[in-house]
Amino acid sequence: MTTPVLRIAREQRDAVEDQVVVEYPLTVIVNGQQMATMLCSPAKLEYLAVGFLAAEGLVSTKDDIERVRFDEEKSAVEIDITGNPALSTGYDFGRFITATSAKGAVVHSFADGMNQARVESEITFAPSHFFTLMEDFQSRSAIFKVTGGVHSAALADSEHIILFSEDIGRHNAVDKVFGECLLENIPAQDRILLISGRVSSEILFKIARRKVPIIVSRSAPTNLAIRAANYLGITLIGFVRGQRMNVYANDWRIE
Amino acid sequence: MTTPVLRIAREQRDAVEDQVVVEYPLTVIVNGQQMATMLCSPAKLEYLAVGFLAAEGLVSTKDDIERVRFDEEKSAVEIDITGNPALSTGYDFGRFITATSAKGAVVHSFADGMNQARVESEITFAPSHFFTLMEDFQSRSAIFKVTGGVHSAALADSEHIILFSEDIGRHNAVDKVFGECLLENIPAQDRILLISGRVSSEILFKIARRKVPIIVSRSAPTNLAIRAANYLGITLIGFVRGQRMNVYANDWRIE
Repeated sequence: MTTPVLRIAREQRDAVEDQVVVEYPLTVIVNGQQMATMLCSPAKLEYLAVGFLAAEGLVSTKDDIERVRFDEEKSAVEIDITGNPALSTGYDFGRFITATSAKGAVVHSFADGMNQARVESEITFAPSHFFTLMEDFQSRSAIFKVTGGVHSAALADSEHIILFSEDIGRHNAVDKVFGECLLENIPAQDRILLISGRVSSEILFKIARRKVPIIVSRSAPTNLAIRAANYLGITLIGFVRGQRMNVYANDWRIE
Repeated sequence: MTTPVLRIAREQRDAVEDQVVVEYPLTVIVNGQQMATMLCSPAKLEYLAVGFLAAEGLVSTKDDIERVRFDEEKSAVEIDITGNPALSTGYDFGRFITATSAKGAVVHSFADGMNQARVESEITFAPSHFFTLMEDFQSRSAIFKVTGGVHSAALADSEHIILFSEDIGRHNAVDKVFGECLLENIPAQDRILLISGRVSSEILFKIARRKVPIIVSRSAPTNLAIRAANYLGITLIGFVRGQRMNVYANDWRIE
């Protein structure tokens, strides 16, 4: 969308119309019960809602989902899921989830996040594969080019990028990718996740849950993300820029 | 801190030690009750905890606080506050707050955020003041220069920057600034908040609560942030780069 802007450059002042990034409040309703409202970019909303539920541990395969429907009037995605103990045992509904986190509940502690199965995939790639993927990844970031300030995430295999999502929320972009995997029966195992922003411990815990063995970013990881990657068997690559990159954990997957 | 890294540049591979940004899990304990655990950068932790409480509406002046103490062994800030209705009427304790949001509970809906008093300050500044402030602001971002991927926030007056904070969380950087204002009795009224990242509606609601009339970023605002700024009487300036900037709301404060 566009907005009126007073553009100032040195002594010059111009009233112009400029593109601006949209924040959309999306409510997720599970089995008729309001679960969360999150601020997001208004695209792939069904995937976002399903990916969010998967990250919260409420669904893990498509079979757990009976129905997904976007209701434009309510700005809500309504999801009916099959019996899940978390729902009957007092899941904390009604929390307000923000654009940048959307993640309050996934990892209640660092110890919980670390207490997951190691990712066992034995795939390996040459560095050139990551350079090529990152180049493609960056050229796809359409919203960012126009308005600035948007995060992107993608799933890639040994050849190219399979899925690509953008969102004002770093976690939302990842949730959209995994929600699409889940609803469209696209496996994430033995594949590569690319993200535009910082790699935090929470992102590591999220991809461990989906069994993704390699994460690649053009930005920096945190110390806890590196510790989690080492512990969970995930190859962590950061600062991929041109023909350069840094490998922070499990570099045996680099040929 | 430093971490071992395999650095790859074209055909070259080097095992090096590299600086990495630290994620620190901080627990906030209020009147003996655990309130939240957030991921943050380990500096100014008392200010972060107090700023977080202020953003949650649990304290609004220094008089509301009896004691603030950082307990390194527990990685917790313990705060004793004077009687507050929110505490007795069932504040949602125990939520896990993430680095990038730290904000689940501040604004439970866009309508709640908009339902605040307008910021009435009549101060005005020439564009050159913002160009100078932003130049200083960027030159101070020390952590970012070394490791990448950190957010900063600052409070400035008609002359220069008064307070400056950095954090891996966008909201945490702002909370540290307001926490320091509150504990050190530094007024925020008639002053300017600078932030490094995207301006979202939640940041607008947070600065309206502290009566800050002008927000300045080198990045982009969202559509809801612009709507909130117009409605709440806040001057919203984005994309300040060199001698250029965009004014998105209440441009009458620009001379």
